[in-house]
Formats: sequence, structure tokens, C-alpha cells
Amino acid sequence: MNKQSNNNNSQKGVLKIIPLGGLGEVGANMMLYEYDDQILVVDTGLMFPENDMLGIDYIIPDISYLIARKSKVKGIVITHGHEDHTGAIRHVLEEIQAPIYATPLTRGLLEVKLAKNGMAAKAKFETIHAGDSRKIGPFTVDFFHVCHSIPDAVGLGIDSPAGLVVHTGDYKFDHTPVDSWPTDYAKLAEFQRRGVMALLADSTNAERPGWTPSERVIDDGFDKVFREAKGRVVVASFASLISRMQQVANAASRYGRKMAFAGTSMVDNAKIATKLNYLKLKDDLIISLEEALNMKDSNVVIMCTGSQGEPTSILGRLSMGSHRIFDVKEGDTIVLSAHPIPGNEESVSRTINRLLARGANVIYDSIAPVHVSGHASQEEMKLMMHLTQPDYFIPIHGELRQLKQHAKIAHQLGIPEENISVILNGQSVEFSNGKMRKGAKIPVSYIYVDGSGVGDVSQDVMHDREILSQEGVMVVNIIMDKNTGKPMKMPEIISRGFITMDNTDDIFNGLRARVFDTAAKANGNIQKDVEQAVGNYLYSETHRRPMVFVNIVRN
Amino acid sequence: MNKQSNNNNSQKGVLKIIPLGGLGEVGANMMLYEYDDQILVVDTGLMFPENDMLGIDYIIPDISYLIARKSKVKGIVITHGHEDHTGAIRHVLEEIQAPIYATPLTRGLLEVKLAKNGMAAKAKFETIHAGDSRKIGPFTVDFFHVCHSIPDAVGLGIDSPAGLVVHTGDYKFDHTPVDSWPTDYAKLAEFQRRGVMALLADSTNAERPGWTPSERVIDDGFDKVFREAKGRVVVASFASLISRMQQVANAASRYGRKMAFAGTSMVDNAKIATKLNYLKLKDDLIISLEEALNMKDSNVVIMCTGSQGEPTSILGRLSMGSHRIFDVKEGDTIVLSAHPIPGNEESVSRTINRLLARGANVIYDSIAPVHVSGHASQEEMKLMMHLTQPDYFIPIHGELRQLKQHAKIAHQLGIPEENISVILNGQSVEFSNGKMRKGAKIPVSYIYVDGSGVGDVSQDVMHDREILSQEGVMVVNIIMDKNTGKPMKMPEIISRGFITMDNTDDIFNGLRARVFDTAAKANGNIQKDVEQAVGNYLYSETHRRPMVFVNIVRN
Repeated sequence: MNKQSNNNNSQKGVLKIIPLGGLGEVGANMMLYEYDDQILVVDTGLMFPENDMLGIDYIIPDISYLIARKSKVKGIVITHGHEDHTGAIRHVLEEIQAPIYATPLTRGLLEVKLAKNGMAAKAKFETIHAGDSRKIGPFTVDFFHVCHSIPDAVGLGIDSPAGLVVHTGDYKFDHTPVDSWPTDYAKLAEFQRRGVMALLADSTNAERPGWTPSERVIDDGFDKVFREAKGRVVVASFASLISRMQQVANAASRYGRKMAFAGTSMVDNAKIATKLNYLKLKDDLIISLEEALNMKDSNVVIMCTGSQGEPTSILGRLSMGSHRIFDVKEGDTIVLSAHPIPGNEESVSRTINRLLARGANVIYDSIAPVHVSGHASQEEMKLMMHLTQPDYFIPIHGELRQLKQHAKIAHQLGIPEENISVILNGQSVEFSNGKMRKGAKIPVSYIYVDGSGVGDVSQDVMHDREILSQEGVMVVNIIMDKNTGKPMKMPEIISRGFITMDNTDDIFNGLRARVFDTAAKANGNIQKDVEQAVGNYLYSETHRRPMVFVNIVRN
Repeated sequence: MNKQSNNNNSQKGVLKIIPLGGLGEVGANMMLYEYDDQILVVDTGLMFPENDMLGIDYIIPDISYLIARKSKVKGIVITHGHEDHTGAIRHVLEEIQAPIYATPLTRGLLEVKLAKNGMAAKAKFETIHAGDSRKIGPFTVDFFHVCHSIPDAVGLGIDSPAGLVVHTGDYKFDHTPVDSWPTDYAKLAEFQRRGVMALLADSTNAERPGWTPSERVIDDGFDKVFREAKGRVVVASFASLISRMQQVANAASRYGRKMAFAGTSMVDNAKIATKLNYLKLKDDLIISLEEALNMKDSNVVIMCTGSQGEPTSILGRLSMGSHRIFDVKEGDTIVLSAHPIPGNEESVSRTINRLLARGANVIYDSIAPVHVSGHASQEEMKLMMHLTQPDYFIPIHGELRQLKQHAKIAHQLGIPEENISVILNGQSVEFSNGKMRKGAKIPVSYIYVDGSGVGDVSQDVMHDREILSQEGVMVVNIIMDKNTGKPMKMPEIISRGFITMDNTDDIFNGLRARVFDTAAKANGNIQKDVEQAVGNYLYSETHRRPMVFVNIVRN
């Protein structure tokens, strides 16, 4: 049965769920639902590189499976406007022509993003609202509202003849969200009455006991910050954290400060969110950064990007004093209103230290309630399971460690182990006659996006970059006499990233001599002999193995 | 006053405290106490590199200040046996001849370390015990016991005519430590009676509210692990975490498992700690790794290194299946009994995921009490201040963010702001007539240790490595005709770490042509013209700027 399903992509009555990203190492969320030879895509996310992915800007899911089935894609649903769910949209649209289903804010943020790449035209949008139901190919999709750290986020009830699947997307159960719009408990209960075959739920915080605090606690955090701030207040966060913008705006109004946004992405997102009325700003509240910098310090708050310590972000430049017009000064209160994404702890910490060194008072989430997670913790995960009462459970959105924890929780709540599938990117799961089984494993890999290149950086290139980054490079040029077959003069040697020149002159003289002798003696493959000689000499002298280029010219 | 002190290093009656490491960016702990032109060194630590210090093994403090004053160094005190307090000892001993004061265990661990570098002979040790008092130059040093995650750790009461300074070293107030030896409250109270001029205290956990849990809670954590483990138990921790070894040994005895150590450093440290009776192991408890691997899984526990996910460590190799004789199998229970050092979160997380993927049950500190911090939290810091009642306070051991938090706590307890000095590496503080003031700023920098090289990797080299790691390298060789001044043939171009070759052939053909034309047209500095042409062409084609080497030969 399983074997057959691997060879046959269009079994009648079989629902296939295929994660292309977001489960395991590639955190770029993208899930395929396939039924009756038709495909529904849920989310098109990107992931930011890990520290050892040298020179990579971001990573997108491998969509070759989708490209091979272009014509079968009936729709693309985006659950909310965060990068790890939207960031790969332009790469997908370059290959796939299908309508994009999104709520107004999510659509707005997607349009901003696509416009940057001149691809706004390529996108066909179907605006939906929480509560709507849409027929997409063989699927009937119920969109239901969920609380998250961005407004207008939705979860999905995906119905097909194979059964009803609830796909939460990113969510939390916040009883006092900033927009006063709680997660749709009633719809989840309704799903339970209809009978939920499978629940696919957000695992991000599966290691966190208890209940994620409400966004509301941040209001108190900001209130204290604004009350005590003598000079300027600067709040750094994500450009897509719209609800945080609202909270800062509210605090600014309460304390009679004007508000400025710094950073293109933040300005653009604030504009669209305001236009669509998800961000409610008093007309006279917002001023430009230039105006803000010329106002009395105690009268302004500036909101900017850089909460992850990105060196090129506004906050990153501020911490290094390298911003064109904006500088930190004694008396500034700087709030990092975000939690470090795993891998960014170090750069965030360094940014905090540098800002402190410049005399700013820096507030961050480990010392004050200026950020809360947008994801459900363990008790909320249990509530989700009890509200939906699924027959089968598949943890999504997380590394294996979180997926396993989430699975443990489901098992504790009475879901039999054989009804729980912990799967990673590429591992499909199939449902037929109400039964779940593992399906084919689709080959998936990282697609690295580096500068303008997509997928043109391979593991080999990455490996070379690693060697270069650890050991540096050495270029050796020798001119050989055609007639005598001997070197005409001492070779020219250049090195970069190897070791500091001035205190290694001996080594270089020794190296030149060694190269000269080797070239003089060589009778077979001079190139190879010299390369070897250089490698051995440098290792014996320095225990380092730089990348060596030997260029031999016969003159 | 201040000025004068800068120019004069040997003022009568002035105590100088000079941090060479451990305060701010360089976490390698090293502090100098200078009085009457004589110097006492406290700790000689190393720091492990941050993610962007490419190719660096570790970092040591810049001791040029000390080298210029060799003859004045009267003694070196090491507070405990952890790397960040001991790791630079061999580099210091290569320059400085002075007796090393250490407790038996600390001495034993130092001797193991020095023996590895054939420097055991160079070291002159003075074994001391908590409770001892020693005259070292103008200083009378009282050694007092402190609890930490390694036995036999001490804090210091450093007395001189200028006044009494209490230097805590790493400490916590643990009422139920593994070795049942609590921190010496009485001695601290005695210091208070004598009158403490200044307190220098560990700031590591200054952002942590409350009280650090006792090491004892780990016993319960391990008890649950051993009770539930069906197969082998593998515990990963630091090689110097002696008290953790004791706890694992106790659990092993309770549950009738034999214990093996894996990893040279762990085996060596266990040996010396056992020999000195700080590690109490039943004779028949310990077996070799080879024996353990051949025993019934349920009868063994293996303790190894790699709790930070270091790829070359035992656990790192296990997670990748690349260990020579040792492999993870279904049913293994693997415990990471340590907290990720800032910057290691990502590699630790990846290691956990890989071990899970290999079928092991992995236990780590965010899901079970298998590790506690060895450092005091906020309430303990307050207790330390109240026990000693210092006139002045200087937070030590931490990044600026922790030092600032610790200073805030001291201020909350009533120490006037002007009596608190938040200083970073190199900033000296002076005490005379019971008054504190900032002194000279000693120039300090990172000393990078890379392979066999010490200090031969400069910021420039690091910067080149960064470019190489991001963009790769491109080597261009052109042969020019002496007579015509034109290129004799198409140039040879080699690249590494740039982009994957096969899908960039067009770019390379275009580049060759561009180089040829540029060289043909060039009339001034061909080298420079070609370099520019290559840079511009590659940037316009790929938005990348690899490091370019152009080699021109006239033939």
C-alpha cells in the first residue's frame, strides 16, 4: 500500500500532507495538501541563515516537487504576514501561477514585499476574512482567527472527502490581545463537532510550561519605560510586528510624545497597516525621523528595526555610531522589544553592550516585560487539542526537539502514539479511509539565497568558504625558464586571511625558498609538487592549511 | 590627581586594581592588584571565540602591561579550576616567573593542563587551603571557601595598607552543595567586622531574579533519568565540572550501573580529582569506555564532553555518527548536563536535534532539572553585599549588561552611585586614603590564539577572513606579450567559495572576455585596471564582491 502510494501521486481518495519547510532544520514554513491530484499550498516562508552558513542572506524551501506539478496547484494560502511564512512568495510566484488567499493585512504586507521586486503584477490575490469559507480545488478551507504577534492571522480548517484537518498556523490563546480579538474558540469547537481527523499545530514553544503571557503585559512594561524616561525613547522590534507598533503608539499618546518610524521596511509596513486600519494612529501622532531628531528629546519616541542586532539595521548602526543622521546619546532609553531568534543571542547581546557603552539606558526582555512570545505554550497546546479532539496529531512549526516535545504532550493527553506522526521536511503523510500512514519521502534540500543568486551556492562552495574563513588563502606565482626548466627568480607570494604579515616574514622567506627548491627539483608535475610543498611547509610552521593557488608560467 | 596617577605607576599608599580580562567583551578573567610597585595577579583565564571570530581557537587577555613589569609580580592566585580562570596560565608562565597559589584540586587541574604543553616544570606552586592566610608581597590574602560548580573554589580577602578588598571569584550560596561544604559566611562576616573597603563580586547572573537552585536539585533530575532509562545513559558535561561527575557517579551506584569516562580531558580530570579525593568513586564503579560498550546497555552510564555541541567533542561526533568506536543507538538516554554558553545555543540545539534523529531520548536543561548555574543570582548578590557591607563596589565577571545590572542592585541596597565603579577591561581603579577614583586606562586588546599561533592573527586578517567567508576568492592570471603589450591569450581564472561553477559558465566567459579587453586597452596600471574591471563585472552580474587576485606576467 505504502509502496504503491510512493509511485502513484494521484491515488483516489488519498489526502497527502507534504512539509517542504518548517519541520526540522529548514524553519521556512511551507506545507502542501494534495488530494485527487490537486495541490493546496499553505505558506511560503523563508528562514534566516545559521551562523555557519557563510555569506548566505536567507534560505527558502526546495519547491522542485511543486514545480514538477505546476498545473496542479489550485491555490496558495498565507496564514499571516511574518517572514517565516511569506518570505519565499516571490520565488514561488516565479514558478507557480495560482491565486493567493490572504486576509487584508497579510495581503497588504505581501504586496509591499512583491512591489520591492517588481512582482506585484504577477500576483493574483483573493482577499479573505477570518470566518470565510472558500472552495479551493477539492478542498473547502475555513479560515478562523488566531491571536499572534501580528493582526489578522488565521488558522485553517481544511476539509476534503478524506476528512477534516485543522492547521493552526502560528497561534496563541491570548484573552487580552492588543486588537481585542481573541482566537476563535467557537470555530474550533465547531470543528470538533464536525469531527477532526487530524490536527497540525504550532510547536514553537513546546518546551515552555504554562501559558504564554498576554500581549497586554507589554503595555505595563512600556508604561514604566515611558514614565521613567527622561530623554528620547527608542523602541527596536521587527518591521512586521504591527501590534507592537500599536502598543508603542498608545504609550506615546498617553505620555504626550510624538512618534517616528525609522527604516524603510518599518515605514512601509506601518503605512499599509494604517491604511488598512489595523494600526490606529492619531493624525498628529506620527512625525518623520528628521523632525523627531530636531525635537525636544522628552517629546519623542522613535521605533526602528534591529532587535536582532543585525549590523546593517538601524539599531545595529546606532550601537556602532555609524548611522548617517541618527546617533545614540546619554539619556536615551532604548527598548529591545523582541526576543533573540535562536542563533542571534550573541549579536543581540553585543548590541546591548555597545548601546550601554554609549551611555543609553537599555531595556530588554530579560530585565523588563517589554516582549512576549506570539506562540502558544504547553497549556495552550493542551487546550487546542481538547478543543479540536483530533484522531491524529502532527506537530508542525519547530525543530525536531520541539516537535518531539509537542508529540509527548499529545500523548499525555491520550492520543495513542501510533496516531502521532513526528515528521521532518520532505516526509509525506497520507490519509485514506480515516487512517494515517507515512507516505513517500520527497527529496528536499536547502536553497540558499545569497545576494542576487538563488541556489547558486552549493555545499561545496559553502565548504570552500569555511576553509577560507578559518585558514585564509595563499597565492604563489612562479616563472620557470622554458629552456633550463628552472625557476627564473624567487616566487611571488601573496596571502590574505592567513596570519598577520609583519610577524611572519621568516615564514614567508622560508616558504619562498622552499617553493623555489621544489620547483627547481621538480621533474613531473611542478604544480602539484609545489602545492604539496607549500601545504606541508605551512602546516609544519603554523599548523594551518590555507587554500593554496599555485600559478606556474613558463617563460 | 588623576592625571598624575596616570603617569606614575608606583604611588606610595595607592592600591590599583586593573582588570585585564573578564569585564566586558573579553570574558577571560584576569585581575591585577598593584600596591607599592608590587603586583598580585588573580586568575589567568581564556575565553572561547564568538561566532564571527573566524578560525580562532580561543582568546587570552593582553598581558603586555604585566610583561613590562615582570619583576614586580609577586604571585599568581587562581580562584578555581575552570578554563575561564585558568586557561591562559601557560601563556602567562612563558613570560612571568611567580609562584602560583591554588587549592589542591585547582593545582591538580592546572598541572594536568601544563603537562599537556610540557610546562609542568616551569610552574612553582604554593598549595593553599580555604581558611589559609598568605603574605604575598605587600598583600595579605585570606582564602575563603565558596560554592561553585567545581569543588575547592575560593574567594579572596586582599588586605593591604590601602584597605581590605573582598574578591569573590565565581560563587553561589548553596545550602546543600554536592560536597556539603557551604560558602564561608563566617569569614565574610569577619571581613565586615574588620571593615571592607571594596567588594568585587561575580556578576554573571545579575539579570537572574531570585536565588540559584542548589546543586542538589540535579540529584532528583538524574534520579528520574536513571529510573526511567531502559538502555544506556550518556551524560555530557564540561570536563572540569567535577561535582557533576560525583552526582552521576552517585546515581550510577544507586541504580547499579557501571560508569565510564570518555574523552581525554574528562578522564584526566576525573583521575586527578579522584587521586586528591575530591571525587569519591567506589573502586568497582569505574570501567573503561571499551568495557562499557561491550556491557549490557542497562548496566552502564558513560560520561563525556561535548555539552556545548562542539563538533570535535565526543557528543558532537556521536550526533554525527562519526565516532571511531562509539555510536548512538535507539533506546539510549542522552543527558546534556550543562547550559549553552552564550553563542553556543545554535550548535547545542543542532546537536540535540541530531541525537533525537538518531533515535536517542535526549534530556536537556529546558525540559528537565539536569543542570543548575554555578553563579549567584540577584538575591544571593544582595546577601553578599549585606554580609560584607563594603564602602565601595565594583562588579566583575560579566559583560557590560551584567555589570550594569549588578551595579543597579548595589545601588538599590544603599551603596551611593559615586561609590560604584562599572569598569571594563583595561580601566584601572585606584584607592588611597580610603577613597576610590578611576585611574589610568591601560590599552588592552584581544590576543587571538589560532592553532599554534598566539597573537599572529590581527583584526585585518580577521576582516579578510570575513570577506573570504562571505564572497570567496577569484584568481586571475594573464600573460602579456612584452612586445605588443597585449594579452597573449584568454586569461586563466580560478574561483573558490564564490558561486557554484557549473551554473555560472556564462559569467566566467564574460569575465574572461572583459579581462582580456581591459588588459588589451590598459595603458597605465594594468593590474589595477583589471582588478577594477573584474570587481565591477562580477558585482553587476552577481552582486557579489569576491577577493580578487590578478597576476600579470610579461612574456
